[in-house]
Amino acid sequence: MPEKSVYLFREGSADMRDLLGGKGANLCEMTNIGLPVPPGFIITTDVCRDFYGEGGRLPSNLMDEVRVAMEDIERDLGKKFGDPANPLLVSVRSGSKFSMPGMMDTILNLGLNKDTLQGIIAASGNARFAWDAYRRFIMMFSDVVLDVPKRSFEHILHSYKKSKGVEDDTQLSEQDLQEIARQFLSHVQANAGREFPSDPWSQLEMAVEAVFRSWNNDRAIVYRRQERIPDDIGTAVNVQAMVYGNMGDDSGTGVAFTRDPATGEKVLYGEFLVNAQGEDVVAGIRTPLPISQMADALPESYKEFITICSKLESHYRDMMDLEFTVEKKRLFMLQCRVGKRTGAAAVRLAVEMANEGLISKEAAIQRVTASHLDQLLHPRIDEKHLEDNGTKPLATGLAASPGAAVGMVVFDADRAAEWGNSGKKVILVRDETNPDDVHGMLAAQGILTARGGKTSHAAVVARGFGIPCVAGCEAINVDLQSRLFSVGGTVVKEGAWITIDGSTGRVYLDKIPLIDPEVGGDFAVLMNWCDEARKLRVRANADNPRDALQALEFGAEGIGLCRTEHMFFERDRLPIVQQMILAETDEERELALDKLLGMQQRDFEGIFEAMAGKPVTIRLIDPPLHEFLPSYDELLEQVVELRLAVHTLGAESIKRVLEDKEKMLKLIEGMRESNPMLGLRGVRLSILFPGIVEMQTKAILQAAVKVKKRGVETQPEIMIPLVGHVNELKTVREKLEAVAASVVEEMGEQIPYTFGTMIELPRACLTAGAIAEYAQFFSFGTNDLTQTTFGYSRDDAEGKFLQKYVEMKVLPANPFETLDQSGVGRLMKMCVDDARQVNPKLKLGICGEHGGDPASIEFCHKLGLDYVSCSPFRVPIARLAAAQAAVSDRVTAVVDK
Amino acid sequence: MPEKSVYLFREGSADMRDLLGGKGANLCEMTNIGLPVPPGFIITTDVCRDFYGEGGRLPSNLMDEVRVAMEDIERDLGKKFGDPANPLLVSVRSGSKFSMPGMMDTILNLGLNKDTLQGIIAASGNARFAWDAYRRFIMMFSDVVLDVPKRSFEHILHSYKKSKGVEDDTQLSEQDLQEIARQFLSHVQANAGREFPSDPWSQLEMAVEAVFRSWNNDRAIVYRRQERIPDDIGTAVNVQAMVYGNMGDDSGTGVAFTRDPATGEKVLYGEFLVNAQGEDVVAGIRTPLPISQMADALPESYKEFITICSKLESHYRDMMDLEFTVEKKRLFMLQCRVGKRTGAAAVRLAVEMANEGLISKEAAIQRVTASHLDQLLHPRIDEKHLEDNGTKPLATGLAASPGAAVGMVVFDADRAAEWGNSGKKVILVRDETNPDDVHGMLAAQGILTARGGKTSHAAVVARGFGIPCVAGCEAINVDLQSRLFSVGGTVVKEGAWITIDGSTGRVYLDKIPLIDPEVGGDFAVLMNWCDEARKLRVRANADNPRDALQALEFGAEGIGLCRTEHMFFERDRLPIVQQMILAETDEERELALDKLLGMQQRDFEGIFEAMAGKPVTIRLIDPPLHEFLPSYDELLEQVVELRLAVHTLGAESIKRVLEDKEKMLKLIEGMRESNPMLGLRGVRLSILFPGIVEMQTKAILQAAVKVKKRGVETQPEIMIPLVGHVNELKTVREKLEAVAASVVEEMGEQIPYTFGTMIELPRACLTAGAIAEYAQFFSFGTNDLTQTTFGYSRDDAEGKFLQKYVEMKVLPANPFETLDQSGVGRLMKMCVDDARQVNPKLKLGICGEHGGDPASIEFCHKLGLDYVSCSPFRVPIARLAAAQAAVSDRVTAVVDK
Repeated sequence: MPEKSVYLFREGSADMRDLLGGKGANLCEMTNIGLPVPPGFIITTDVCRDFYGEGGRLPSNLMDEVRVAMEDIERDLGKKFGDPANPLLVSVRSGSKFSMPGMMDTILNLGLNKDTLQGIIAASGNARFAWDAYRRFIMMFSDVVLDVPKRSFEHILHSYKKSKGVEDDTQLSEQDLQEIARQFLSHVQANAGREFPSDPWSQLEMAVEAVFRSWNNDRAIVYRRQERIPDDIGTAVNVQAMVYGNMGDDSGTGVAFTRDPATGEKVLYGEFLVNAQGEDVVAGIRTPLPISQMADALPESYKEFITICSKLESHYRDMMDLEFTVEKKRLFMLQCRVGKRTGAAAVRLAVEMANEGLISKEAAIQRVTASHLDQLLHPRIDEKHLEDNGTKPLATGLAASPGAAVGMVVFDADRAAEWGNSGKKVILVRDETNPDDVHGMLAAQGILTARGGKTSHAAVVARGFGIPCVAGCEAINVDLQSRLFSVGGTVVKEGAWITIDGSTGRVYLDKIPLIDPEVGGDFAVLMNWCDEARKLRVRANADNPRDALQALEFGAEGIGLCRTEHMFFERDRLPIVQQMILAETDEERELALDKLLGMQQRDFEGIFEAMAGKPVTIRLIDPPLHEFLPSYDELLEQVVELRLAVHTLGAESIKRVLEDKEKMLKLIEGMRESNPMLGLRGVRLSILFPGIVEMQTKAILQAAVKVKKRGVETQPEIMIPLVGHVNELKTVREKLEAVAASVVEEMGEQIPYTFGTMIELPRACLTAGAIAEYAQFFSFGTNDLTQTTFGYSRDDAEGKFLQKYVEMKVLPANPFETLDQSGVGRLMKMCVDDARQVNPKLKLGICGEHGGDPASIEFCHKLGLDYVSCSPFRVPIARLAAAQAAVSDRVTAVVDK
Repeated sequence: MPEKSVYLFREGSADMRDLLGGKGANLCEMTNIGLPVPPGFIITTDVCRDFYGEGGRLPSNLMDEVRVAMEDIERDLGKKFGDPANPLLVSVRSGSKFSMPGMMDTILNLGLNKDTLQGIIAASGNARFAWDAYRRFIMMFSDVVLDVPKRSFEHILHSYKKSKGVEDDTQLSEQDLQEIARQFLSHVQANAGREFPSDPWSQLEMAVEAVFRSWNNDRAIVYRRQERIPDDIGTAVNVQAMVYGNMGDDSGTGVAFTRDPATGEKVLYGEFLVNAQGEDVVAGIRTPLPISQMADALPESYKEFITICSKLESHYRDMMDLEFTVEKKRLFMLQCRVGKRTGAAAVRLAVEMANEGLISKEAAIQRVTASHLDQLLHPRIDEKHLEDNGTKPLATGLAASPGAAVGMVVFDADRAAEWGNSGKKVILVRDETNPDDVHGMLAAQGILTARGGKTSHAAVVARGFGIPCVAGCEAINVDLQSRLFSVGGTVVKEGAWITIDGSTGRVYLDKIPLIDPEVGGDFAVLMNWCDEARKLRVRANADNPRDALQALEFGAEGIGLCRTEHMFFERDRLPIVQQMILAETDEERELALDKLLGMQQRDFEGIFEAMAGKPVTIRLIDPPLHEFLPSYDELLEQVVELRLAVHTLGAESIKRVLEDKEKMLKLIEGMRESNPMLGLRGVRLSILFPGIVEMQTKAILQAAVKVKKRGVETQPEIMIPLVGHVNELKTVREKLEAVAASVVEEMGEQIPYTFGTMIELPRACLTAGAIAEYAQFFSFGTNDLTQTTFGYSRDDAEGKFLQKYVEMKVLPANPFETLDQSGVGRLMKMCVDDARQVNPKLKLGICGEHGGDPASIEFCHKLGLDYVSCSPFRVPIARLAAAQAAVSDRVTAVVDK
């Protein structure tokens, strides 16, 4: 049991959220800066933890402390809790450190019983008001404390109104309400197995216990899991003197934001109701009015409120979300907290407040979150349109790649490419995608899959290309044969329009209007501030000129990962790549390599020109060669069918087809691997089949020379993947250095190329000192590094156990989304330390998907990397996160003094 | 250039092998202990390195030093190099630190020319001898130094003999030899483009250069690669005064071992020839006599030689391999080195020498190698029988599991089991094996596969069970249809007898007699000494009572790894396991689990009884469940065929079969993984499907209790595999602790069980401190740890690139055979340090295959592990290696003072 369990509002402050909860801490703060807050006190979160520690019992001396605090309120208001003559009524509310709206319980008007009711009638001069409060209190208390469900009371009320032939609660008279209160009380006795407690102190003690219990009700637990709020922080209990907005036309209640939370505009934004309580607003019985009209209805209170808003904004230096009540012309503040905002508002608020001098630029940077920016960077659905039209989603899948898209449904990649390239807008809908679909994905506005998780092929590729994607939408049933998909009874045929929202996972029928990204104005200003603040450089992962330009537009300072094999998967190239792989003679192979050389060189020229002198890291071929060949299973099926056909029909032509397919099958069988992730790929391939990487190196440097001759500088950085032993890098680098030198010499131009390696295996980190001697740069490939450090195959883990692991809290997070600092991060730190010691000039970066994740970026900043690289659409987020990390550093540095 | 380039024999010693080479150092040693060694000097290996450093040129002042050294010899012998009157002739021989027999070049009789020849004639009084020496010198020198091939000289000699009508060199007269020398000289002039050098000093300089050059001839390079001798240590050059064993019947030459190198018996062992030179022995012109007959032929020299042998043995404290020449009754020692020996001899020598007081027990332990023991522990082919009968192998594959086996060929596991279990001896011959074959492998004497490496399924299982195996024998062509295999033209039908030698990879037709393992006597004595010396405890990996008993017999102190899933693969169980996996209701699943519970319990009872109180580590289920199901590809093939059959025939019965198969296919498809190594297995499975491990824990503890009631103590250690995050262990351990506690309570017996985890993922090592809090023991699973640290799938890597990597020296060794200390070892060290800090009582062991590899065992000793665990047949080797590591430690400790 802590020393002090109960705090009067004047004893606390805004920075005591851990102990007093968010609501309570802010009530204290408002009290202390002199705002009109109905007096009250807070029972701390420590007590909640003790409550659970003691198996659900309040500490023995708690109520003594509560009585002392209550006396303070009584003195303040000149009323007395439980005094029939001049009774004090209170509200009892939960309030944890993090806002959990509607998840826990609230009781109003506590302290009422048959005796104190008379005092309220006397004080208010309004018996109907008092009886109404009483019957509401009975219902709320019984629901929360005595487990008699609210709806059973509503049923009684409904029957009574029916018997009286009335529609609205307001039509009920004082006598009606008296009768209802009577019926409620006997209903309680019948269902709770006890009388409704009339002693106000018993009411209070029971209410406090109930609020603590509500911390662990089902919906609160689910909410915390969703929002990643720890289970053990507990809730505080706020006990506050009641005030009433329903005491006549000189009373009212309202909520407001000090600025517009949707746009960030500096105008008061909110609603109010005359002669009403907060409950009425929530219940939707009457439609509230815009806050500006309060100027006419309650002019003095409005003026006072405007002053308070401005005072709170300067005090908190942020846009605030407020609740207030006016009781007979007296304004009371009931709640204040930092207001939630949209991405657009967050940016505007941050920039404007900094410009107003309210906050520093550093603070402005800290005010905007990654998800705020993410909203801004993609087209989004016009929510107002949905609201106005009552449009509901057809189905909901996983939010796999952010942004909304509108297009006609197509069911295969070829048609998507055909329609898309002819200017039509299409959404590619598949059970799941595979590398053969990439040309179709590229031509689509958006992608919708029925299966696969957030890291399925569709999701990863879509995020890489910045294409909106809803994945794993299991409600949809794709019928490829009939070229349609269905959801329940709804059938969507090829060519029909749909809208998908990759930020929410929702799928809608028809075209929904979209709102375009807003990246000018305040956004640009904020990004500039970020660039001034950050130490990490930000690059993008881009495999083609289009992505490179997109990345530049978003502020990328180079390309951190250009995957050459993505070029191999393109439709016109795959046959040549297959020719190269399956070549039976050196001549055949070289012929294919020569063709690829020209194509790759043109690719690189395009990228170099786009990047205009900025560094470009090109990764040499990485995946196992069988990825470029047809699927073994499909081929096997075909072969078995053909064998039977030959057996039955004996046709010579079929026989020849069969022979070809059988040959291919045998070849692929020879190349199959049990665990391709850990097989013949990356540098292993380069060592055993050096021709491919020699061709690629040639293409890179010939392109660089060619572009330079056109007046464009280049900084190619040639990256060798999957090195686990220094000798691998040494072997390949020596070979490629020779190729590079000869190209440069032959073409008579100096190109400042460098060689480095991807660090994506534990052993590379463990022996980084040795490897660093032969590298000019390291780039952490944290996707693969996470796979091998955990022993997780991402393809298998995501679907088969990772999601469950996170749900069960076996893992704190999906390590493919947020870098695992204690495992993978420890390896990275060893690597950085050892490598820098050997080679202080080594350039260090990260190009895994973590390069776009804010928490991971902060870690990279702390590691002292030189840059992060992420998909083009994540570049602004990375710039922000890098700046936030640098700003935090500075703040920490100050604290450390 | 080092200070001193040339060492006289009296200036060196045996411990200067690095600088003087092995041969030279031992010549020095013999000289210094007063043995009769023809005088000479050594040009150091440093000079060789300088030679290569200078692009193949001798250091400029080398020959000056050589002249000074030569003067010393001249003074000693009263002869002069190049002096026609009293010429000194020398031999020039290579000699590196490690013996490379026949790999580099030797020149005899150097210093001969037309003038010195006369001096030799005068001194020896034997003109024919002198001319014979001359023509031999011309040939040897020209071959080695002038690149005129030896065979071209042999051709001239052959033609000359033909023209003279003689068969044998000995039939050639002095005149013949003069003529041949003349022809040789003009042959040189014609082919070398220069005259044969007549100046002895030029001859010497050229010969020294040639010896250095021969360090890098092709066969030397290949040999070094094979024997893992570094390329950069270089060779020394030994220059020594010539002595002649062919000066008449009071001369001779011979080689001898001080004890029998085949058996270790303490008898002089060797051969000699009267009136002959070493060359003649090598050339096989005459058959040498047993050394004992030298007592009659050259009695005085023999007596002297016996004394020298004994002197050398006491001096070197080891069995020595000697070469000598007797020139006119004068005995000269030409070479001495520690003798190579068989496994049997090594053990006997070590034990006897220790008993004689010649060496300490510690030294005896160091004298025996793992491969010596390995020879003893398995039946081996009677090599004498092969020799006597001129038997050649039919084919050669990889030596995959040591030992020889004789049996009848069978081509499938079922027949192997049937024949084997009915008492027949069989060799299972397959393209490759898979888990379905295990029952047949167990019943076979040996296994022969056409495909797969040293770590293929066949090899790993065979080594585990101690069954001889030749794997990847690509020369054999298995024709399963006709039930035969062929090699070239030879056809071997099912039922025919063959013999395989898993220690050499050789395959023979018919039955070859085998020699049984010898594990008594000296072997047992040596093992006792090892047990006294070592600190590491040695356990075995055993999955059944048979293996457990075998392990005990070999001295195992417990079981370090009992793989429960091996029991699942047994024929009568697999259907029940499949039933469990495919169960559609909880009831079905529990029914299957119940059946398995009884079976597993009986397994464990057997093992516990066998181990009689020694600790037994049982690993809970590890492989992905789909490993227990039919192969997807095979099923797919069947389904396609059935579909077509239904389409063609439409039979209802086929339709039903198809439906069943299709259902199974769909199920298996759902469970398939792209990288099963990194998928849903180990503890992941236990967390998501807790039923299986709960059943296993129950089975373990019920068995322990049952066995205890029969009076046998047990120490079960329950091991949870593949933990990567502490929460995994925590989750499963809590669940299983509860099961364990309830079993023990229910049955009313105390069992000292413990829970621990396998450390086989990088992340487990990186976060070992956290994991150690929840474990009572750790066991390194270095197979998987190597896979994930390197990112190598063992199944793929071995065949696809690992062998090439080792050949190309990209990797120093196959990391699955010898623990990679700088990568995997560094992780292990971190793990041990962090874990012991948190939990000093933690028991630490290793149960990967490295647990049986001597170098890895030494590393484990240094890490301070508590035990190693290996396959039963490796237990004696592990005991030896552990003792050697401990002895080395002690030696090092002494040096450190």
